[in-house]
Amino acid sequence: MTEVQHMKWWGWGVEGVTFTHENKPNFAPFVLDKVGLDLWTEGTPPPDFGEISVPASRLPGVLAKGLASAVGEGNVVTDDQDRVVHTYGKGISDLVKVRAGDLPRVPDVVVYPADEDQVREVVDLATAADAVIIPFGGGSNISGSLTPPADEERPIVSLDMGRMNKVLEIDEDSGLARVQAGVLGPDLEEQLAALGWTAGHQPDSFRHSTLGGWIATRSSGMQSDRYGDIADITRGLRSVLPGKVVTIRPLPSTSTGPSVREMIIGSEGRLGVVTEAWIHVHRVPEKRLVVAYLFQNWGSALEAMRTISTSDVHPSITRVSDPYETQFSLATQKAQTGIKGKISTGIFDLLAKRGWDLNEVCLSYVGYEGSPKHVAYQRKAVGKIVSAHGGIGLGTGPGAMYDQKKFDTPYIRDFLLDRGALADVSETAAPWSKLRGIYERVIAGAHRVYDEIGVKGYIMCHLSHSYHAGACLYFTFAFPPLEGEGAEAPLDQYWRLKEVVQQSFIDGGGTLSHHHGVGTDHAPWMEQDISTAGLDLMVGLLSSADPGRNLNPGSLIPTEREW
Amino acid sequence: MTEVQHMKWWGWGVEGVTFTHENKPNFAPFVLDKVGLDLWTEGTPPPDFGEISVPASRLPGVLAKGLASAVGEGNVVTDDQDRVVHTYGKGISDLVKVRAGDLPRVPDVVVYPADEDQVREVVDLATAADAVIIPFGGGSNISGSLTPPADEERPIVSLDMGRMNKVLEIDEDSGLARVQAGVLGPDLEEQLAALGWTAGHQPDSFRHSTLGGWIATRSSGMQSDRYGDIADITRGLRSVLPGKVVTIRPLPSTSTGPSVREMIIGSEGRLGVVTEAWIHVHRVPEKRLVVAYLFQNWGSALEAMRTISTSDVHPSITRVSDPYETQFSLATQKAQTGIKGKISTGIFDLLAKRGWDLNEVCLSYVGYEGSPKHVAYQRKAVGKIVSAHGGIGLGTGPGAMYDQKKFDTPYIRDFLLDRGALADVSETAAPWSKLRGIYERVIAGAHRVYDEIGVKGYIMCHLSHSYHAGACLYFTFAFPPLEGEGAEAPLDQYWRLKEVVQQSFIDGGGTLSHHHGVGTDHAPWMEQDISTAGLDLMVGLLSSADPGRNLNPGSLIPTEREW
Repeated sequence: MTEVQHMKWWGWGVEGVTFTHENKPNFAPFVLDKVGLDLWTEGTPPPDFGEISVPASRLPGVLAKGLASAVGEGNVVTDDQDRVVHTYGKGISDLVKVRAGDLPRVPDVVVYPADEDQVREVVDLATAADAVIIPFGGGSNISGSLTPPADEERPIVSLDMGRMNKVLEIDEDSGLARVQAGVLGPDLEEQLAALGWTAGHQPDSFRHSTLGGWIATRSSGMQSDRYGDIADITRGLRSVLPGKVVTIRPLPSTSTGPSVREMIIGSEGRLGVVTEAWIHVHRVPEKRLVVAYLFQNWGSALEAMRTISTSDVHPSITRVSDPYETQFSLATQKAQTGIKGKISTGIFDLLAKRGWDLNEVCLSYVGYEGSPKHVAYQRKAVGKIVSAHGGIGLGTGPGAMYDQKKFDTPYIRDFLLDRGALADVSETAAPWSKLRGIYERVIAGAHRVYDEIGVKGYIMCHLSHSYHAGACLYFTFAFPPLEGEGAEAPLDQYWRLKEVVQQSFIDGGGTLSHHHGVGTDHAPWMEQDISTAGLDLMVGLLSSADPGRNLNPGSLIPTEREW
Repeated sequence: MTEVQHMKWWGWGVEGVTFTHENKPNFAPFVLDKVGLDLWTEGTPPPDFGEISVPASRLPGVLAKGLASAVGEGNVVTDDQDRVVHTYGKGISDLVKVRAGDLPRVPDVVVYPADEDQVREVVDLATAADAVIIPFGGGSNISGSLTPPADEERPIVSLDMGRMNKVLEIDEDSGLARVQAGVLGPDLEEQLAALGWTAGHQPDSFRHSTLGGWIATRSSGMQSDRYGDIADITRGLRSVLPGKVVTIRPLPSTSTGPSVREMIIGSEGRLGVVTEAWIHVHRVPEKRLVVAYLFQNWGSALEAMRTISTSDVHPSITRVSDPYETQFSLATQKAQTGIKGKISTGIFDLLAKRGWDLNEVCLSYVGYEGSPKHVAYQRKAVGKIVSAHGGIGLGTGPGAMYDQKKFDTPYIRDFLLDRGALADVSETAAPWSKLRGIYERVIAGAHRVYDEIGVKGYIMCHLSHSYHAGACLYFTFAFPPLEGEGAEAPLDQYWRLKEVVQQSFIDGGGTLSHHHGVGTDHAPWMEQDISTAGLDLMVGLLSSADPGRNLNPGSLIPTEREW
């Protein structure tokens, strides 16, 4: 067996860690009120792997032998549970299916290479055998990028990068690190921190996603306002294709025609297996603060974020929740007793007296980094903008709390699923002028679907990243699907909702995804997003690089455009 | 005839504007000393167009008729001088050839469309007739992107974008402007300024280059440290291919797979004709300053720039000249009399007394923009870094001068060429750790070539753009080629030099060009820069989009990789 650790086969995160509402007194009443779900009912217990039926591996003996000779017997795994872990990502659709044992096609083998030479051997062997290769990082994908096509008749190799997890070298003068693609977020930051550096890339999936996965899907992190999206951070890379390696040397900028670097980034395995990258690293900042603010309403909050984005200062985080997400956040707070609890309640009493409508309040977090002087300079400038938009500062207490629990949200989804509710997320980016329109389309569209289905559902949103020309809106939605006779299958209900959300993004002038990638889930919107002629270019690129469709076929482009 | 104005057919810039050394008393002695050229000898007069022999247009009558019906008779030009203007860019090789009437293949027609519909018609007509289409902006290219292959037998259409020069709309909330690709720099800024905006993109070619040209070659401007390279600035675009238009909507960031936006950017006409783009625009900053600094030597100057790039502040310009370019700059100063002249001399006397070696001094310009408070904040922070690296500030006087004459340098090249000397530029970008190595390779390599040829040549350099992970080094070189019996042709001497410079970039870990593009001149280094497998991806993309090689064939990739 391999030393690589995976998430639970049936859910998010590590065994033993779960969400609990019992220390959060407002949460159960909130959920009951919003989606009609009683959290005090017993959840279904974790599924029993023994009860699901896993299709046998169809790995041809010759390929098995070749792979074993390439990476060593112990790193060629056909064990059922390992293969099931590599069948799905962690979207709600994945979780529902895997829990139900819905496994139309499972990888025939999981291979764990130790280095790039082994990746090359695996890729060459697999393509020679006309097998399909699906690179696998942390398995946190929520766009369907990891799941083999149900009708794939050829052998399927899941290429798990988990053993390739080292920071190989640091170019200190240039603030660049050469890092293997299979490193998980915490492991990367630990190795860098030991040398006084940070990459500063922290997606929500940070604990369970890898550098290679970030690159493959065009990831963005919580601090990307300062550190850049992964497409900015990644300056050089290597990607293994059959018989060759694309090598992009680390360069701060270049004028070498259509950007091959920007072709590999976002390619989700269809342009080879990214084995390593040169990424920006930074000295750990002297000071780091996250300050909380409250705004009277969503409109003034968005306008404040826009004003910050065109100001002289550049915070590391600009985040603001709509009123629905603000209420959700308040409902997930732990019980506060004594002075602290009184102050917290006191603020809202005070705001109500000032005439604020508490149903409209929006909670915001803004992050600052740098020297103490620079942090103070930026905080002051942002404070002025917040005030000018009628907002108030809450200091650093809530921000510190946010920092601690920022990676825990996905566990809530499993907790709700145990109790029968489906929850998931979708995000987009758009110019500032289009954000309100998209927001209203999505919220109205979701509630229309809830009404049509006949369920009580919730949807909430936050602005998660700001740019000069626009921002990312990140939506979270949850509902207990209609049950009983005549009810559509729960996932069919989910897809009705998801489709309306995605179409609202496109119709409102946004993109199909800001940082979760395309996969199979978003591929139907690709043509509307980048135009038919744009899709032609992408198909031309992919099909010329992989005429035999051996590299993660099915991802990125609509099925009818596969060659 | 068209209303579109072009540069001189035989040189840079507009008729009547030339460089003169007569008000710069130190320049002639400097040039005599460095390259042995006596500027007081009479230059050759501008060439006479009547003396060169222009191959007749081979435009087929049917295509001529179709084009006239698409864009109007007056916008289909087969006049000799117009066709010659559209045969070359403005590299030294172009200038030498055009002055000599070396015209192996000239476009058969120049077409001036008025809008995208007309571009579509022209592209469709031309490809239906199996003609070649070469988009033309300001004609300032210096990488050989505009010149038809000498052996091209098919009709050649130069598609001049000069009439498509309007700012079409501004999305004020998003800081985005939709602009036609044929707009020249000054015209763009004038239209934007009338509405209170600026794009902030100022390449050296600013006065004679267009938005479409900037996009086609991955341009960078003097203020790109703040405003970004054109690849950052360009958020959406439209590119006309035969029968279709790639439409990338304006988005601040997106996760839609391999970036089609980043495929079109840098495509130099090989992925169609860019007709318009959504670009970042900014409110004109309240304050703008360029401050001059002096450093004791190149090493401390580079280290100061690197330190600024990793600091909390982000100047709009970080530029520093090596000692050779510093001496050149001082030699091109106008005569200063009275107090001003005395102060200028006084500074250098003072530095000599402090122990500075005046042969090693490096002149730097750093630009600041924003509110007066922010400008002061940044200037102070940079001032500290400069001091810590042994440098001194000279105030804003020299900076204002730099601002005024920054676009005049190309005229010097024509002036030197009139007197028999060849001068040109080459630039690269590389990680900070590699800059010194590249610099030394290039300087040593150039002098080795000068020695081998047996000429007195000069080469100088400045750092022109800083990034987190590295910077751009911009080299300028000049020499009077060897003449007389047995001497190689002047351009052959030039190419020996140019090849050594380019190879030194690659060998030292830099890229073939930071912002001038690839064209035909740099294509031989493409494979070394992006790897064979990377070039395979690019060839796959280009050949699938344009199997008939109708779109600017010959540019971007090495000849042996054409399909």
